[in-house]
Amino acid sequence: MGGKNGNVVWHHHPVDRSVRSERKRQRPAVIWFTGLSASGKSTLAGALEQILTAQGYHTYLLDGDNVRHGLCRDLGFSAEDRQENIRRVGETVALMADAGLIVLAAFISPFRADRRMVRDALPEGEFMEVFVDAPLAVCRDRDPKGLYQRAERGEIRGLTGIDSPYEPPELPEVHIDTSRLSLAEGLNRLLNHLHDRGTLKAGYQPGPHSLLI
Amino acid sequence: MGGKNGNVVWHHHPVDRSVRSERKRQRPAVIWFTGLSASGKSTLAGALEQILTAQGYHTYLLDGDNVRHGLCRDLGFSAEDRQENIRRVGETVALMADAGLIVLAAFISPFRADRRMVRDALPEGEFMEVFVDAPLAVCRDRDPKGLYQRAERGEIRGLTGIDSPYEPPELPEVHIDTSRLSLAEGLNRLLNHLHDRGTLKAGYQPGPHSLLI
Repeated sequence: MGGKNGNVVWHHHPVDRSVRSERKRQRPAVIWFTGLSASGKSTLAGALEQILTAQGYHTYLLDGDNVRHGLCRDLGFSAEDRQENIRRVGETVALMADAGLIVLAAFISPFRADRRMVRDALPEGEFMEVFVDAPLAVCRDRDPKGLYQRAERGEIRGLTGIDSPYEPPELPEVHIDTSRLSLAEGLNRLLNHLHDRGTLKAGYQPGPHSLLI
Repeated sequence: MGGKNGNVVWHHHPVDRSVRSERKRQRPAVIWFTGLSASGKSTLAGALEQILTAQGYHTYLLDGDNVRHGLCRDLGFSAEDRQENIRRVGETVALMADAGLIVLAAFISPFRADRRMVRDALPEGEFMEVFVDAPLAVCRDRDPKGLYQRAERGEIRGLTGIDSPYEPPELPEVHIDTSRLSLAEGLNRLLNHLHDRGTLKAGYQPGPHSLLI
């Protein structure tokens, strides 16, 4: 820039991910929950976020609710649009991880290639895939949004598990069968994994009794 | 969820923007730099981010470099694509502000309606428009990316200020003419405004001597 103090020398020390990460005293991560509708993704992600926040971590939870009305509101549920939806979400979580946050993302994300794309867009070791597993019959039974009922009545199309495929993860970092584990057990499994991979630092002691809910 | 401890009651206290904001001890904000290519947007935004980070604030800088290759890599520079570019960026900065960050966004963003859309997507008072102003002749002179030269040679089209319009802000929160102010003066103007609006809290003392660069 010119101006009166044109001879001031500006020393540029860019604020990069390591500076932001150090400032927040945490390692960024993307915890990606994938599974059928009603498998328990949002419940697990919401509960984990609450625990992490209570322990002082800086988190953000992204799910269909906060992107389908905004960033991806021009997209539908065709295979092509679903792919573009996950692509944009993947770019957004990469920016947020770059900002130093621990991002929790809860999306059906039925296709392996799309989840792989998100993983590959992140630095090595920052992506953690959580397979939220439950038999289709259990999900249909829960059906909190009434989506399976509506699909059976022919009111909606392309519901994953009904007339659109779900490709389960082959090597997820964490596998939680929510028809067999309680919420507390699922959370402990997540917290133990986060501890083992070094995302959680001082303050959290893993173990079956560490979680009081 | 079912499972062995199906009778555990989960008390849901959602982690919302106020919780995240309190955790970070800062008020979220979007500081939006608009102006011609080479007007000084990235220089100002980068320097401001450096100062804010040094003072302990949690920031993130978004600019063409980190979205044009990712989130918006399917978009070109037609009026329609520019609008969609700013729409996606607007949704992304809204999510980041919701996450509690102070977001700095440096985009030519030539159209008033698009900038208005970003402002309207944010809670009252979180958007701050910074008009980075400089005469076209000065920007052409600087031309660090060689864009004006290339436009003159007919190699690129749709360059703002040459063959695509720029609509200056009518009531920007901050107006900085980088052909008349030094970088230090511009930064002081920004910091004083951030202090006055309550984005900066304890620790920052406004004034002409507060900035050491």
